[in-house]
Amino acid sequence: MSKLAIGIDLGGTSIKGGLVSGTTGLVRERTIDTNADEGPTAVLDRIADLVRELTVDAGFANLHGVGVGAPGVINWDRTTISYPPNFPGWDVVNLGKELSSRLEHPLVTVVENDANAAGLGSAHYGAGKRFDSFIMVTLGTGVGGAIIYQNRIFRGSTGAAGEIGHMTIDYEGPFARSGVAGAIEAYLGQRFLSRHARYKLMNRRDSLIHQMADKDLMGITPRMLFDAAVSGDEGAIEVLSWAGHKLGCVLGSAANLLDIRKFVVGGGLSGAGGYILDSARETLVRFVLPGLSEGLEIVQETAGNDVGMLGAAHLIFQHIDEKGLHSG
Amino acid sequence: MSKLAIGIDLGGTSIKGGLVSGTTGLVRERTIDTNADEGPTAVLDRIADLVRELTVDAGFANLHGVGVGAPGVINWDRTTISYPPNFPGWDVVNLGKELSSRLEHPLVTVVENDANAAGLGSAHYGAGKRFDSFIMVTLGTGVGGAIIYQNRIFRGSTGAAGEIGHMTIDYEGPFARSGVAGAIEAYLGQRFLSRHARYKLMNRRDSLIHQMADKDLMGITPRMLFDAAVSGDEGAIEVLSWAGHKLGCVLGSAANLLDIRKFVVGGGLSGAGGYILDSARETLVRFVLPGLSEGLEIVQETAGNDVGMLGAAHLIFQHIDEKGLHSG
Repeated sequence: MSKLAIGIDLGGTSIKGGLVSGTTGLVRERTIDTNADEGPTAVLDRIADLVRELTVDAGFANLHGVGVGAPGVINWDRTTISYPPNFPGWDVVNLGKELSSRLEHPLVTVVENDANAAGLGSAHYGAGKRFDSFIMVTLGTGVGGAIIYQNRIFRGSTGAAGEIGHMTIDYEGPFARSGVAGAIEAYLGQRFLSRHARYKLMNRRDSLIHQMADKDLMGITPRMLFDAAVSGDEGAIEVLSWAGHKLGCVLGSAANLLDIRKFVVGGGLSGAGGYILDSARETLVRFVLPGLSEGLEIVQETAGNDVGMLGAAHLIFQHIDEKGLHSG
Repeated sequence: MSKLAIGIDLGGTSIKGGLVSGTTGLVRERTIDTNADEGPTAVLDRIADLVRELTVDAGFANLHGVGVGAPGVINWDRTTISYPPNFPGWDVVNLGKELSSRLEHPLVTVVENDANAAGLGSAHYGAGKRFDSFIMVTLGTGVGGAIIYQNRIFRGSTGAAGEIGHMTIDYEGPFARSGVAGAIEAYLGQRFLSRHARYKLMNRRDSLIHQMADKDLMGITPRMLFDAAVSGDEGAIEVLSWAGHKLGCVLGSAANLLDIRKFVVGGGLSGAGGYILDSARETLVRFVLPGLSEGLEIVQETAGNDVGMLGAAHLIFQHIDEKGLHSG
């Protein structure tokens, strides 16, 4: 019988769970609402229910564990989440303990930062499969990142490595939410990208964005920019090229530091990815030491939002490989 | 009998060699001129002579190998140097083969990039001893760097990781020799720092620098700036603070990406280190994600220029640990 693991992608609005086979991949998946405002006990109950539902015919006997990708700070031993943002009432939570007691079954549980889990998922199930080492960048509310080195997560000193969104590309640039001037998130984070689009397109009445935002440019979203770009809107394309230029700068810095030359960009860019990535590719080569420029590649994540859940399940397969089947 | 290894720091102007004991450290050292213009055969002969001289009473029987820190591109297997800059006539040179044939004795030889060798030396014999993981920055003609992760060199995809000098802090900033805009080397590299000082101090006739440079500010060197700062010269101190600010920005980016929070800065700053490093420390904390700011530390390398040679010797001790005593 093939190894089975459950992957959970714990998000602020939804929880995505999947039963994954070590040989055939995703068996089934299910997404539920997080309802984070109901507090930790309710959310943990819901995760336990989700695990129970996903294992229904497989049974706990064949399940090797539950991997969880979660926001907030994860401890070095990958057992606890601390103060996940947008989860009211959570302090330090030992996920394995909470789930095992709810399921009345001792479960191997491995927790990882959500961006790292997505990186690992990409490495084994997504666009990152082609590469042994790459940097994953996830565009969303913020700009997340992970370093995959020789097919494993590079964790740094405390498990928090990969915060590419907070690297600066202009020490006198705009401030990101982190207070870092010129951090890449201050260009590519949802709110920042939307604001840039607002000013850039304000006087371009021909842009589709004006209709899409119902003439209220305060309501511009990255989604609208992507859709408008795909429809050929020049203004939207210019904004995305601008964003790609900034992305290329920071990827160049990362390539110089790490000698990792492959990049996977995820985060629901869908068909508009090319507008950002082409511009990033053009810039990247100008920000990399000439001796390191061979083999540079930026690709778009194709497995979509599933990579977080798949990567979370893969944490269990890696755990088995390291510790053997019978350790807990 | 204790393990013995020779470390060679191959520089453009001088070659530093040391016989190092695995238990007691440096046994003896000797520095000779490189005379790189005489071409590869002559330089390799001189290195072989140096090895012979250093081993004189120890004998080859107790010598476990020769580690070499060298400029240029090193291959993944750590056997060859390719086209080292400022070494006319060198193409791809297999150092182990060249030395073994000259010494008429098969020698284990491990070659590493000079900045990486210095990082490893710092980790085991220098200011980096206190840290498991740190980033080494060496200020000189250029700005060199190395990543030490869990006491080993982080090599990246091809062995070229650590090029912190080419990370950008201003995508519209001045160009470094690499063509990267706003690369930290374009602020802190010898030529760039001297030029900044020239303009900054041109109209400050009270600055000691005017006497030191014999009234010709084209002749300013970082050495003069360091000496003037130690003598209390305000202009020189301002220039070094400016440089430290830039250094702090790039170290912040690196800390965010790697979750490595310790930094060792080397390169002959001597007594003036504080002027650069205090300013770097102040800036660093403003460029690091608040969640990663605990435990940030920037220290000055204390072992001076010996770390390259000592780190080169340590390559052999690591090689023995990995491969056992009798492999070649």
